[in-house]
Amino acid sequence: MVDDLESRVRKTGLWLYQLIEGETPSIFKKEYWAGKVMERCMKDEAFKVEMFRFVDVFPYLTRPQSVAKHLVEYFCRPEQDFPPALQWGLRLVSPTSIGAQTAAKGIASNIKNMGKQFIAGASPKEALPVWEGLRSQGMAFTADLLGEAVVSEKEAEEYLKRYLQLFEILDEAQKSWDPLDAETGDLDWGCVPKINVSIKPSAMYSQMNARAFDYSVSRSKEQLRPIFRKAVEIRAHVCLDMEQNDLKNLTLAIYRSLLEEGEFKDYPHTGIAIQAYLRDSEQDLKDLIQWGRKRKQRFTIRLVKGAYWDAEVVWARLRNWPVPVFTNKHETDANFEKLALYLLKNHESVRLACASHNIRSIAYVMEMAKELKIPQEHLEYQILYGMAEPVRNALRKAGISLRLYSPVGKMIPGMAYLVRRLLENTSNESFLRQSFAEGISREELLKNPLEFLHQETSSPDARTEASEYGDKGPFWNEPLWDWTLSEHRERFSKALSKVRKRFPHKVPIFIGGKKVTTGKEIDSTNPNDPEQVVGIAASAGKEEAEQAIAVAKAAFSEWRDIEPRDRAEYLFEAAAQARKMRHELAALQVYEVGKNWSEADAGVCEAIDFLEYYGREMIRLAMPRRMGRVPGEMSHLFYEARGVAAIIAPWNFPLAISMGMTSAALVTGNTVVYKPSSQSSVIGSMIYKVFQRAKLPHGVLNFLPGPGSEIGDLLVTHPDVALIAFTGSKEVGLRIIELAGKTPEGVIHVKNVVAEMGGKNAIIVDADADLDEAVVHILQSAFGYQGQKCSACSRLMVLEENYDKLIKRLKEAAESIELGPPEDPKHFMGAVIDTGAKKRIHHYIEIGKKEGKCLLERDMPDSIGHVVPLTIFTDIRPEHRIAQEEIFGPVLAITKVRDFDEALKVANNTQYALTGGLFSRSPENIARARREFRVGNLYINRGCTGALAGRHPFGGFKMSGVGSKAGGPDYLLQFMVPRNVAENTLRRGFAPMED
Amino acid sequence: MVDDLESRVRKTGLWLYQLIEGETPSIFKKEYWAGKVMERCMKDEAFKVEMFRFVDVFPYLTRPQSVAKHLVEYFCRPEQDFPPALQWGLRLVSPTSIGAQTAAKGIASNIKNMGKQFIAGASPKEALPVWEGLRSQGMAFTADLLGEAVVSEKEAEEYLKRYLQLFEILDEAQKSWDPLDAETGDLDWGCVPKINVSIKPSAMYSQMNARAFDYSVSRSKEQLRPIFRKAVEIRAHVCLDMEQNDLKNLTLAIYRSLLEEGEFKDYPHTGIAIQAYLRDSEQDLKDLIQWGRKRKQRFTIRLVKGAYWDAEVVWARLRNWPVPVFTNKHETDANFEKLALYLLKNHESVRLACASHNIRSIAYVMEMAKELKIPQEHLEYQILYGMAEPVRNALRKAGISLRLYSPVGKMIPGMAYLVRRLLENTSNESFLRQSFAEGISREELLKNPLEFLHQETSSPDARTEASEYGDKGPFWNEPLWDWTLSEHRERFSKALSKVRKRFPHKVPIFIGGKKVTTGKEIDSTNPNDPEQVVGIAASAGKEEAEQAIAVAKAAFSEWRDIEPRDRAEYLFEAAAQARKMRHELAALQVYEVGKNWSEADAGVCEAIDFLEYYGREMIRLAMPRRMGRVPGEMSHLFYEARGVAAIIAPWNFPLAISMGMTSAALVTGNTVVYKPSSQSSVIGSMIYKVFQRAKLPHGVLNFLPGPGSEIGDLLVTHPDVALIAFTGSKEVGLRIIELAGKTPEGVIHVKNVVAEMGGKNAIIVDADADLDEAVVHILQSAFGYQGQKCSACSRLMVLEENYDKLIKRLKEAAESIELGPPEDPKHFMGAVIDTGAKKRIHHYIEIGKKEGKCLLERDMPDSIGHVVPLTIFTDIRPEHRIAQEEIFGPVLAITKVRDFDEALKVANNTQYALTGGLFSRSPENIARARREFRVGNLYINRGCTGALAGRHPFGGFKMSGVGSKAGGPDYLLQFMVPRNVAENTLRRGFAPMED
Repeated sequence: MVDDLESRVRKTGLWLYQLIEGETPSIFKKEYWAGKVMERCMKDEAFKVEMFRFVDVFPYLTRPQSVAKHLVEYFCRPEQDFPPALQWGLRLVSPTSIGAQTAAKGIASNIKNMGKQFIAGASPKEALPVWEGLRSQGMAFTADLLGEAVVSEKEAEEYLKRYLQLFEILDEAQKSWDPLDAETGDLDWGCVPKINVSIKPSAMYSQMNARAFDYSVSRSKEQLRPIFRKAVEIRAHVCLDMEQNDLKNLTLAIYRSLLEEGEFKDYPHTGIAIQAYLRDSEQDLKDLIQWGRKRKQRFTIRLVKGAYWDAEVVWARLRNWPVPVFTNKHETDANFEKLALYLLKNHESVRLACASHNIRSIAYVMEMAKELKIPQEHLEYQILYGMAEPVRNALRKAGISLRLYSPVGKMIPGMAYLVRRLLENTSNESFLRQSFAEGISREELLKNPLEFLHQETSSPDARTEASEYGDKGPFWNEPLWDWTLSEHRERFSKALSKVRKRFPHKVPIFIGGKKVTTGKEIDSTNPNDPEQVVGIAASAGKEEAEQAIAVAKAAFSEWRDIEPRDRAEYLFEAAAQARKMRHELAALQVYEVGKNWSEADAGVCEAIDFLEYYGREMIRLAMPRRMGRVPGEMSHLFYEARGVAAIIAPWNFPLAISMGMTSAALVTGNTVVYKPSSQSSVIGSMIYKVFQRAKLPHGVLNFLPGPGSEIGDLLVTHPDVALIAFTGSKEVGLRIIELAGKTPEGVIHVKNVVAEMGGKNAIIVDADADLDEAVVHILQSAFGYQGQKCSACSRLMVLEENYDKLIKRLKEAAESIELGPPEDPKHFMGAVIDTGAKKRIHHYIEIGKKEGKCLLERDMPDSIGHVVPLTIFTDIRPEHRIAQEEIFGPVLAITKVRDFDEALKVANNTQYALTGGLFSRSPENIARARREFRVGNLYINRGCTGALAGRHPFGGFKMSGVGSKAGGPDYLLQFMVPRNVAENTLRRGFAPMED
Repeated sequence: MVDDLESRVRKTGLWLYQLIEGETPSIFKKEYWAGKVMERCMKDEAFKVEMFRFVDVFPYLTRPQSVAKHLVEYFCRPEQDFPPALQWGLRLVSPTSIGAQTAAKGIASNIKNMGKQFIAGASPKEALPVWEGLRSQGMAFTADLLGEAVVSEKEAEEYLKRYLQLFEILDEAQKSWDPLDAETGDLDWGCVPKINVSIKPSAMYSQMNARAFDYSVSRSKEQLRPIFRKAVEIRAHVCLDMEQNDLKNLTLAIYRSLLEEGEFKDYPHTGIAIQAYLRDSEQDLKDLIQWGRKRKQRFTIRLVKGAYWDAEVVWARLRNWPVPVFTNKHETDANFEKLALYLLKNHESVRLACASHNIRSIAYVMEMAKELKIPQEHLEYQILYGMAEPVRNALRKAGISLRLYSPVGKMIPGMAYLVRRLLENTSNESFLRQSFAEGISREELLKNPLEFLHQETSSPDARTEASEYGDKGPFWNEPLWDWTLSEHRERFSKALSKVRKRFPHKVPIFIGGKKVTTGKEIDSTNPNDPEQVVGIAASAGKEEAEQAIAVAKAAFSEWRDIEPRDRAEYLFEAAAQARKMRHELAALQVYEVGKNWSEADAGVCEAIDFLEYYGREMIRLAMPRRMGRVPGEMSHLFYEARGVAAIIAPWNFPLAISMGMTSAALVTGNTVVYKPSSQSSVIGSMIYKVFQRAKLPHGVLNFLPGPGSEIGDLLVTHPDVALIAFTGSKEVGLRIIELAGKTPEGVIHVKNVVAEMGGKNAIIVDADADLDEAVVHILQSAFGYQGQKCSACSRLMVLEENYDKLIKRLKEAAESIELGPPEDPKHFMGAVIDTGAKKRIHHYIEIGKKEGKCLLERDMPDSIGHVVPLTIFTDIRPEHRIAQEEIFGPVLAITKVRDFDEALKVANNTQYALTGGLFSRSPENIARARREFRVGNLYINRGCTGALAGRHPFGGFKMSGVGSKAGGPDYLLQFMVPRNVAENTLRRGFAPMED
């Protein structure tokens, strides 16, 4: 029967092909500009990259000379060797020349036309004639509103308004429409409304976040209810689209939850999409159908393959998450058939909208529907507007119920959609490309995808790269929790109550493995509830500091001399222990230093990263490097520990930075006296606990909570301390460097100081920046963890062309951020660390008000914590104090700049050089920023916080530090001294010879 | 005719083979221990290395348990996988066990037997019966006296005595000898004396040095005269042997010069060896024969192939000199035939002693002699005693005049000879191995070597390794002058007079490319003649220092921003300019700072090395390093200049260290204010001159001679100086570090200090050390450049087992060193830098006399310079001031230690950790020293000075420096700050994908 089915599928497929013999999708027609460009994109990956990027930035370019400039930058760079024809005659001409601008105009109009190919119109009004034309040809449609990313609640409201407007227009229009293929009633094909609208869930709530899952669902539903009410009112079909996988579980939850509400629970004309490329899709589908059966009301599932494949793979890799999609196209195709069959078998409960351009997939569904005798009204086919016209024609000729997915929108939002479509068309694995551009045989294309699966074993997920870390394998960053999974949310909630129950945690000093108390104590309280004592730490004085140093000194030589690989193993074991304690370690940071769930989780991952990375780095550095290559001599360079290290840690990354400095000192063979910040001694003690569980020998790590004013100088100036690793303020850092610079008589080392200090970091927003991205990242960089990161963005340079638009969106987005205690996962920002910080930040806000204009000052009036307002100033001049001094709080200073030159000048104009950011799509400006935006860590088209070990070696220069880079390949070198051993291997005229 | 000759050679060869059908050289006989060992050596290179090394150290081991310990260390290391049989049952047993010592005794006796195979006896008396036995079998012999290296004039005298004794014994004995094959007279074969002695020229003068060529010749002749007189007296043949190529030109000169003297010019019974593996040998031979014709007296040339092939290749590579030998064995064979033919053709002037074991070579000579009708008395054949017995037998059976080369000597010197013989036997290309151990066909072995040359193109000299420096290619150290070539000696002499004529050199300040004078001046004088003013430098004050910093600051941003590769090109051009000025640059160092010729030359080479190495390193570091490997992100780590660098340089390496620090600062993009030492401002100005000739832009390098007391602090503390590179004393270094640690308000960088300070370096002489090597290297390390190197050896730890012997040889050797002004190339050591140094060193000598015993105090009474005695103290305890404080002069403190533990403890027991040395042949002790002898640069079995860029990254820790390593891969990093740029490459869900 299977063979029989296969041959019928093939037959049907061939028949569909015959129906459209000789046709080609417009996009591949080489006589047109678009066809030529597509052809080149398929042949030349480098050109495709530039083309898609240009298409992406193009609608932002308001002036012809700007288009010309970008064309030159994208296609005429000296290192490129595109044929002159693809450089549109622009090489060597000035972008301001008339010739260039004429060429630019031509290309602009071609790109616009390419956009029009896929987009029915800029507005529903404009699209209406197109849709009516489709209907007159016997095809239904579904309308989709393209839009920029919704980054604020204002934008979400506007989006809602656009949907309501769309419904009004369609309702008005439908009155004159005859139903398609209906014998009775006013429904198309006798069963579905003439109006069909697709909705993007991401547009419903600007702060949608899986961490605050239920809250996000509830806020989204608030927005969706009027839409659904309107749909019910005018009997329209509403379908929730599926976007990126991050939103999938939320979308499913929103859909189900909304349709369980009384006013909608009996409404049959709704739908949701399922993406067959997701490995989870089968389970999701089964859950949905089960839910649908319980609800006892039919609904539609639009079965698609998925349009974010490239992005999903990249996102997963960037986060070191499992890739959620099938990585082999044939797996997706096979899964599509499997899910389609499952849907057909359940056609009594759910209606299938089969949305594919793949003739094999379509033929399979047609044959299975025949086989299972599915009534025609239980099944429809969907095709994207402007794509795959031959397939559309075949289906029409085959007399099948067909709906076109038809987006409406302006140029800017349209381009994201256009790029997805172009990508789909030009992908190597695209059915359309294979069918219509490459002429792969029909027989081949109609094969059962399972056949290919048996043949192929390729997997782009295979991480086969050679490791510089020997058998330990490459380093990968610890993945953050995926909050879309309920188990993580629940476990984190439980961890919060668990650590809370133990308040106040008792924190002793540990010297040589023994607990020490001193009678003196330091309380550590919750910044969001200062009455709540999180922990009580023993407070070390000079005597304990001396003891700790003596113990560390005694432990030094043995620890230095064990195999580096064995030291690294302690770090790996500590990483394993930290993983086990992961929720607890994160939960403590919520209470003791006021991090939100995600920041707290990231802190733990970063700590684990340092352990795994430095452990590996030590393996690499432990391999002596051969110097020179002459016979008769074996010369090797290697490294050795310095001695006792004093680690003086900050409170803002109480786990990650402490762990980084401590593990670096330990793995390189130094012994450690670790002084946590007094504001975070409980988390500090966790560093000790993790290493204790990893069975680190006693005395190698000593834990010394205590006031810096009492023991700080002693640790720095003690003759037996060879190395100081410090992260904190510029003032303290410079003092340490100065003190350490004095080498008293009788001391036998020059102290080495690894110091990370402050920052006054700027982000530049270029005239062509993608504001969808920029706004979100700026907010995260400036206000994430209340701006209490040395990497935080505290200055913004915006080019005047983009200024008004950015300021508006940024302000509205900042107004949409949820404020409040971070215990509640919906809160993005809470209290600052202590009253001192609060006072200092308030002081700077007062200064800011005098120096510039206050764009926004959002208070948290109900909070009992050390709260300060989220504050944004505009009209800030570079020399203003607010633009020069580190505030370390949620205060952002904005400066409008004329051009990119000025932006760079202003950005560089501080005593600090830690992080920086740039949002730009100009290759030239990006290249300039690489060279001339002189900071330790520059981030392009992303936020300026969140450096990852191994990927973004972190640290600055000027007053930001001494040029070390945590999490980078040079970091451990600072904790060691280099040694060289050269052996003359020639004896009696005989030396071992090498190959 | 050629073909005909070839077939006759082959026929003769085959006939010789037939004569010895079935015979095998003893050394290959597998039934014996030696045969088994040889077989294994041929199969397993690793075993061969250990075996030869063990053989080398073996005679030094006086106790069975010491033999057992070494056997275990050589053959039973955990990482080795020799078959148990080759571990002699020693694995897992203690070296002190009876079993181990029994095994050791067995092996000891086997090795002794192996030695006896090649050595006729421990003394002439012992050997006499052997020789007489040879004569009774119809073979002549030549006696060779094996000896340890002659490191002192005492040892040279003793050697002379041994030769005279040998003559006495032989003269006494010859009275009873019948001449061989002589029809008339008392000469063997009617033409040569019965007594034939071979002499090693290296034993004639302990300080033999090509630099002082004529002096070395004259001193050697003084020693040789009595030997030649004796030979004339008793009518013996004397042959000068050829040793390593370094001595070749000296040996030829000694031979010719001596035989031109009246008393010897008519004596016919002398000879000299020519090594056919030397590329120069043909020219040398022709010169010799021409000389002989003029002299009108016959002499003999022993034509050998050469026994130091491995060593010559290694030595040349180590020095980056052209390899003097043919690298293809067949080239040597072909050259041997060519030279033999040339000799035969000149048989009227010169007698050929054909010394080869290669049957093809022998057959060729036999056939050519026949062809040219050479009288039998014009030709003899030589074979080494104990080697190639079948060849010997064949020649005897062929009735040919045969002489055996027969060494006499004790175990220790014998072992060097034994290793050479073993090496010869086991080499892949050994004719004996191929003939008798591998059974390669006779046809093949008898082929004309020229035939192989056409087939083979292999060259071990091809330096094909991939370069990390891109198209610039790998780094190789600048080769020192080869003083054996007269052109170099002559050019250096001329350069000395040339620079002397320009005294006093006028040295201005250079700021921004302009000459500046100040009215104030500093004289720079010749330490060996303080009246002689070498130069007069303008003396900069605070005003000029400010100006220079301002100019450097102004030049900074442009210089920083040019392509790193372009900056590197300035260094390469500077290197080219320095090469052109090489003799002048070296000559100045002889006068201004008192370096001897070789030290001065080495200083120039080192300066060139820094230019070539740092230029390349910058090319390497300029390549941004990709961080992480995730799609959607491009993250790169790279480096950028810090700002204005103050370079504060010492006088002791006025060119090399100045050039190193300056070029590192420049190539990394910093601009420089360079302050030379006031004692060496003329050479300092040469740094400027070299860069000026390389067309470095004005202002990038500023030259600021002036007193440290006036401008030092200003340079260090100036707010615009970001970086200080200093080499000098601990006191000044610590002061700089302390001053630089203070960051005044308003300064926007933390100053970075690269500081190299003092040393108190020790060499350990283990119980099994090769004293031939140790003595020479210790003297060079302790007294080279008067001990005025931070790397100089100033302490010696000697294990008591070796103590007396070492002290005796060291003292005698130190007494043999030539002292005096370095202008004269024979002088090894001259005056110290100035009166201050002289006073300080004298003061320490007084202290030393109180603390220990003065072993040697050699004055330079006739000198008018700042001279101090070469001084050695013994009985020094580790805590003595003389063992703790840096003296920076020619003073060596010796401590006797019980064992290696104590040696390491004492060696590490100082505040410094710069260089160290170890002479040992114990693999275990070498491994321990690698780990536990904690200094920046440890040298094993070589001296502790003379680090080469790229091969020995140089620098120490503790009070010796801050852990930088000049000439190493981490050095340039200190001159820069790291930057990271991470670009999010994902746009609209699309990111360029990588393979």
